[in-house]
Amino acid sequence: MTDIIAEANQKALEIIQNAQPTLVGLGIAGDTLPGMRKDLILHAGPPVTWEKMSGPLRGAVMGGLIYEGLAQTPEEAAELAASGKISFDPCHHHDAVGPMAGVVTASMPVWIIENKAYGNRAYCTMNEGLGKVLRMGAFGESVIQHLRWMEQTLYPVLKEALEIHGEIDLRNLIAQALQMGDEVHNRNKATTSLFIREMAPSIIKTGASQEDKVAVLEFLNSNDHTALNLSMPAAKATLDPVGKVKHASVVYTMARNGTEFGIRVAATGDRWFTAPAEIIDGLYFPGFTMEDANPDIGDSCITETMGIGGFAMATAPAIVQFVGGTPQDAINYTKSMYEITLAEHPIYKMPSMNFRGTPTGIDIRSVIETQIRPVINTGIAHKDPGIGQVGAGVVRPPMACFEQALEAYVELLEADGLLE
Amino acid sequence: MTDIIAEANQKALEIIQNAQPTLVGLGIAGDTLPGMRKDLILHAGPPVTWEKMSGPLRGAVMGGLIYEGLAQTPEEAAELAASGKISFDPCHHHDAVGPMAGVVTASMPVWIIENKAYGNRAYCTMNEGLGKVLRMGAFGESVIQHLRWMEQTLYPVLKEALEIHGEIDLRNLIAQALQMGDEVHNRNKATTSLFIREMAPSIIKTGASQEDKVAVLEFLNSNDHTALNLSMPAAKATLDPVGKVKHASVVYTMARNGTEFGIRVAATGDRWFTAPAEIIDGLYFPGFTMEDANPDIGDSCITETMGIGGFAMATAPAIVQFVGGTPQDAINYTKSMYEITLAEHPIYKMPSMNFRGTPTGIDIRSVIETQIRPVINTGIAHKDPGIGQVGAGVVRPPMACFEQALEAYVELLEADGLLE
Repeated sequence: MTDIIAEANQKALEIIQNAQPTLVGLGIAGDTLPGMRKDLILHAGPPVTWEKMSGPLRGAVMGGLIYEGLAQTPEEAAELAASGKISFDPCHHHDAVGPMAGVVTASMPVWIIENKAYGNRAYCTMNEGLGKVLRMGAFGESVIQHLRWMEQTLYPVLKEALEIHGEIDLRNLIAQALQMGDEVHNRNKATTSLFIREMAPSIIKTGASQEDKVAVLEFLNSNDHTALNLSMPAAKATLDPVGKVKHASVVYTMARNGTEFGIRVAATGDRWFTAPAEIIDGLYFPGFTMEDANPDIGDSCITETMGIGGFAMATAPAIVQFVGGTPQDAINYTKSMYEITLAEHPIYKMPSMNFRGTPTGIDIRSVIETQIRPVINTGIAHKDPGIGQVGAGVVRPPMACFEQALEAYVELLEADGLLE
Repeated sequence: MTDIIAEANQKALEIIQNAQPTLVGLGIAGDTLPGMRKDLILHAGPPVTWEKMSGPLRGAVMGGLIYEGLAQTPEEAAELAASGKISFDPCHHHDAVGPMAGVVTASMPVWIIENKAYGNRAYCTMNEGLGKVLRMGAFGESVIQHLRWMEQTLYPVLKEALEIHGEIDLRNLIAQALQMGDEVHNRNKATTSLFIREMAPSIIKTGASQEDKVAVLEFLNSNDHTALNLSMPAAKATLDPVGKVKHASVVYTMARNGTEFGIRVAATGDRWFTAPAEIIDGLYFPGFTMEDANPDIGDSCITETMGIGGFAMATAPAIVQFVGGTPQDAINYTKSMYEITLAEHPIYKMPSMNFRGTPTGIDIRSVIETQIRPVINTGIAHKDPGIGQVGAGVVRPPMACFEQALEAYVELLEADGLLE
């Protein structure tokens, strides 16, 4: 029995370690994501109904409906969302991931990432930047206008530029950024900088107007989180093939919809194990407190699932200015993650940890045994729709997710005659 | 007495801490550097005659004469250099600094940096990139052609782009890069990335051809050392006002011409204290050994004089892949530099050192007392002209420089009646 689990986990680990997530193009969600349609709205985390959606997710859904022209006002949008005429599905059920609320609608542009080692693809919208943004639950006129600019200007310029440039190896990009103080979840300054300098010549070569080229480069330069929406689908593309490894106890999805936290484990395939999402311990923007915070939300902890983000905070000590704590805390977070993972990543290395690889392959058995939960750093959305980000901090999945997963895993092993 | 020295050193320290090195423009050396002319060649380090010049400096001088059209062949150039018809002067005597051989000729473009706090300016050529380059003593046809491309394409595009963009605060740029794994002497990847993303929109706005804009951005992207030639004059602009502080025991220049290492100290003004430069302990490129190495060369240790570079290696552990040693060595280098400096920099902070400021204000008294010499990381040039870089490593100034400086300092204090 032990051999079968060990072999399965070894296979899962190799899939993560050998992945080659590569940016291969851009497309429009409706034409690109499997099963995507105009009356379907994708969201972060495990499945959730409109009735149970948190404030920021509701806000983003309302904004998405307005952006799609399906509603004219927030009130109309809320009514439509509640009417049953709109379907909701997790991004993860359509090969996609989305930061925070993670709302994807049919007209939104998406990055297309292919895992060259296994042929699977993952998708993610383009990052909107800071301030009032849909992913944080804001839906005002400026939010919608900016989404339109992204669709009509940012998308075509970057799509053409990428075609001129050719594919970009995201594994290499992430590996470099981990040596430049990014943990590549909430600190993406180096990743974004490397991406911009690589793309700039090709942006110039596009047929876009000079004004549009300038606007695109100025927007990218204004938004250090540009690369988050590349690292997230890179992580998903890396992990999805793990979901097909029978008997492996490795987590291949962690995601939150703002109400519940959900995980998925290789052996139990598509099944979600969920529990109420927690409130985030962190640094709040002036004027806001924990009272204003929505529970943990977003698919972005797919980065932690791959072993970067909170797992790699040792290499990104500057992030504590954003999420709280000290550089020593950052090191301790990373060190403790080795306790619940199978191995170190051979390419994602951390100079400050003497070039040790990032902790890779979360084993649910180790989480239960050690009672150490994965560490996630994250933005914090206001609990009400329409407001936006109120801070950033550190959070963990509820232990109940792992307890349920282990129970199901044991049942499955028993059913397969692998437990005596 | 002690009070006068302490006050003088406090003043020197404040000058360094308050400096505001700012990129304000580009110009041609002959029109921009004080006292520059066609038959004058500037070089790194303290003064040196053609007869005593090391191989790489001779190579760069020969290349510089060919570039200026004053000689057609390396042989003709060597003959001219030896004829007495060409004058040689340190860059430092003309408000300039140059990496490695540091050769500046009248036609070369230079970055113009102004210290907004004190009004002084410093200049540096543009970085040539890697491979066969003049600064490493190479002078072949490709080297000269590349220098012409820099003069005719890179320079006008960046000059215009900077005029469109406006001044760039280099103190801020360096402070950010120190949080991104650069020590900003031999690791400039983040600094260069930040510079590119900031400049790209303005490059598009220039009147240059699309081909030239693309070529400029591709060259900048190919050369992580672009920003070295900004951090060096930023450091010089920061330190030069220290050279006028009477009775201060603070070093404001360290520089090497490939034959000798020289330092200058505030109290003793323009006077150089020199001793033979040392051979560098480091990592050699395949096919080369210490036998091939020229002694320590270049003005780039002006960065260490300001307290970054080797002094900030703790924040740039990835650099040990380039210069040798371990991340722990990098931390130890930084820690030991606090022993010989007056204070910590209030803006240049290192997250991995719990946001401690970089060691700032080298005190010659502390160097002698502790017998700890400043640590410098550096490229290594081949000892023969025409070859180029053979490795990179860590080196220190000869203690004799500090011994002579202290002796002169004590004499000066005595002469001024400040010693009993």
